[in-house]
Amino acid sequence: MKKLTNKAILGSIIFSSSLNNIYLEKNALLVIGPNGKISDLIKRNEDRYHNEVRKYRYSQSLVEIKGHQYLLPGFTDLHIHAPQWPQLGKALDIPLEKWLQKYTFPLEAKFKDENFAHFVYEDLVRSLLRAGTTTAVYFGTIHQRATQILAEKCIKFGQRAVVGKVVMDNHSQCPDYYRDSSTRDALDDTETFTKFVEELQKNNEGKIYAAITPRFIPSCTNEALYELGKLAKQSNVFVQTHCSESDWEHQHVLDRCGKTDTEALQEFGLLKKSTILAHGNFLSEQDMDIIKAQQANIAHCPLSNFFFSDAVFPLRRALRKGLSIGLGTDIAGGPSCSVLDTAKNTIFASRALESGVNPFVQREGRGLSNSRVSFKEAFYLATKGGAQVLSIPAGSFEKDFYFDAILIDTEVEHSRISLDKFIDSDEDMIQKLIMLSSRSNIVETWVGAVSV
Amino acid sequence: MKKLTNKAILGSIIFSSSLNNIYLEKNALLVIGPNGKISDLIKRNEDRYHNEVRKYRYSQSLVEIKGHQYLLPGFTDLHIHAPQWPQLGKALDIPLEKWLQKYTFPLEAKFKDENFAHFVYEDLVRSLLRAGTTTAVYFGTIHQRATQILAEKCIKFGQRAVVGKVVMDNHSQCPDYYRDSSTRDALDDTETFTKFVEELQKNNEGKIYAAITPRFIPSCTNEALYELGKLAKQSNVFVQTHCSESDWEHQHVLDRCGKTDTEALQEFGLLKKSTILAHGNFLSEQDMDIIKAQQANIAHCPLSNFFFSDAVFPLRRALRKGLSIGLGTDIAGGPSCSVLDTAKNTIFASRALESGVNPFVQREGRGLSNSRVSFKEAFYLATKGGAQVLSIPAGSFEKDFYFDAILIDTEVEHSRISLDKFIDSDEDMIQKLIMLSSRSNIVETWVGAVSV
Repeated sequence: MKKLTNKAILGSIIFSSSLNNIYLEKNALLVIGPNGKISDLIKRNEDRYHNEVRKYRYSQSLVEIKGHQYLLPGFTDLHIHAPQWPQLGKALDIPLEKWLQKYTFPLEAKFKDENFAHFVYEDLVRSLLRAGTTTAVYFGTIHQRATQILAEKCIKFGQRAVVGKVVMDNHSQCPDYYRDSSTRDALDDTETFTKFVEELQKNNEGKIYAAITPRFIPSCTNEALYELGKLAKQSNVFVQTHCSESDWEHQHVLDRCGKTDTEALQEFGLLKKSTILAHGNFLSEQDMDIIKAQQANIAHCPLSNFFFSDAVFPLRRALRKGLSIGLGTDIAGGPSCSVLDTAKNTIFASRALESGVNPFVQREGRGLSNSRVSFKEAFYLATKGGAQVLSIPAGSFEKDFYFDAILIDTEVEHSRISLDKFIDSDEDMIQKLIMLSSRSNIVETWVGAVSV
Repeated sequence: MKKLTNKAILGSIIFSSSLNNIYLEKNALLVIGPNGKISDLIKRNEDRYHNEVRKYRYSQSLVEIKGHQYLLPGFTDLHIHAPQWPQLGKALDIPLEKWLQKYTFPLEAKFKDENFAHFVYEDLVRSLLRAGTTTAVYFGTIHQRATQILAEKCIKFGQRAVVGKVVMDNHSQCPDYYRDSSTRDALDDTETFTKFVEELQKNNEGKIYAAITPRFIPSCTNEALYELGKLAKQSNVFVQTHCSESDWEHQHVLDRCGKTDTEALQEFGLLKKSTILAHGNFLSEQDMDIIKAQQANIAHCPLSNFFFSDAVFPLRRALRKGLSIGLGTDIAGGPSCSVLDTAKNTIFASRALESGVNPFVQREGRGLSNSRVSFKEAFYLATKGGAQVLSIPAGSFEKDFYFDAILIDTEVEHSRISLDKFIDSDEDMIQKLIMLSSRSNIVETWVGAVSV
């Protein structure tokens, strides 16, 4: 099943059209156009169904999926620190501000070496595709060339990606060995990188995008932030940064700017429809209102919430406000590279927030009531929700959406998922697939109908 | 590598000898005796090492593990509801007391049908072995015969197991369709089941054990609990039950008995060295002292803590007190059947408890300080800690311990784990293996040196 352009696929598909609508369509017929987009979806109960299936079968362009396999939309990971890939699964023992200085900045500094960048980024992009991440939003490092290599690897292996060269020009927070050589250089490099990606876009429509990427306010000077804000205004590239991530980070910005991250980012001109704010754990109601008014977006990273954020992002509250949200693994702040794991941990974290965790506190004061999110909502955020944040038509099986998809096999040897057609309802089957699938159940990944 | 008795194994091994001591021994030589137990462990730096390796190689009894493979002790799962296997990954939306009545009792009642028991239990035992669970502690159902079938499946597929016929005789809490027909029958069935297991033991030394299994105090009459306590005193079988699991359950016992679960269980004669208490989220300091004095044990079930327990078990506090603790998946209250996942979630839950989860609460009052557990501690609890709870010499690579083990392959196609011998320390490698391994990395499982 290398290339599915100009073919029709017959089999069970699962997808979310909105936060609370999830579908399992058995024996659906998905038609893929020459551009890698879905041109038609024909359900079993439609009059034309049998004729259409016959038509594609006769023309030998029908691909049939097995009965124990399910097509799902590919995942969008809205927050990845690409250079932290070698650190995945370790270095989880100290708070954010110490972790950066002790483990993370020394590792990221190594990407001055282009060979190291080639080696790590190739492994990263391939691994994430295997894990079902068809669209990835990456922080690179401060290094122009290494970050270009990351963009090139995404093109090479066929992953849809947003990539940014990180800006860190603040002497008081960034070590000598890992800091932009000057504010001017940081800005120039950002512009050069953006142009480099524009060149790549010419032959890779819809595949690669640049992001203006101030690491976060602590790492950047006000001058850099204002100038990046101007650049963001002039261009239509993405903006990505961290926002109100931990007690330390949130307080640092309050002390330095006299206002919250959100208010400060707005003033710097960095809150736009194309802005992705990672974390947001300590957003106030007012912050959320500003983000909504600016149509900016949030990348919820539940696993790193447990390790570095000092709290769980109040996702339910943000959803109720109507904010635009997707999920992020936060590699390597979260010790899993899988958006599927992240979706599960979104559910777990929301339940921990709702019930609370401390048994020595009375029930009434223990948690934040009405905080849970369901498996349907987590799945939506992992698929269509994340793609919507980027305004990319992907993450669902709808007409004119890219065929970015994964094939889940419930019968692989080591991670068999028991579905019982007599006991389990369709909704049960969907929930089991989400809760019990592991990486080995993902047996194929397509981006734009091309197997990757 | 079907049977490793009377062989020596050469390769990298990882194991915990105590809560904070974890070892990666590269190219170690593990010698297995005819009884499936480890008879010797010879490290590279020992004088006799090369001679011993040569000896086993010449006699063609040397088994060599590949460089990208690691031997780990098998896992002990201290809390599994075997009949809930078909429910794994679903039915997570309502509180414990409603969940039992709406989903769980109707499912468990189906095990009156022996064919259903055969079908489900065979699938369960095989799946858990694949997931690396070499020793399993099972709640069955109220059904004598179905629970015998469960014990038989453990023998058939080679899993070390503790199995109990569940007692539920309380009319006010158990529905008509799923309740022991009388208190007398519940006790008689428990005795009959225990004798049945004694018979099985004759040809299966160290493989199968019975447990007296009052579901929990709410499900049982005082009479049944007292009588089971007497039975526990007369015999040396295990005792398993739930203890202070959720706000509702904890309060129910306080209201009915005028004392905590722990105090009541002690009074019923059910707190022994062979007792496994699942959950324990709302144990008081005094409860913990009683449990310690009685040498009873706790099965910590972090995933179901998030869904059904209203809080996280204060594991660090219990460890500091010196309680005996292992881990439980709590199938199907926790939506994973993997003890490896449970170990990871032990870490996640402990971090959530330490930092707290609610961002609208001030930092000082948000969490329970000094609650985190490390990857070393979680690994110990998943392996030797759990086996120690059962007084079974397993869960570590030490002399006279059973060779109950799993083989982790870091290079399997879909879940490759990147270890970098130049960057990662031995401890980093261990941590990455624990945090990043998934079920597909477990390519072989042995119980008593027999591949299962």
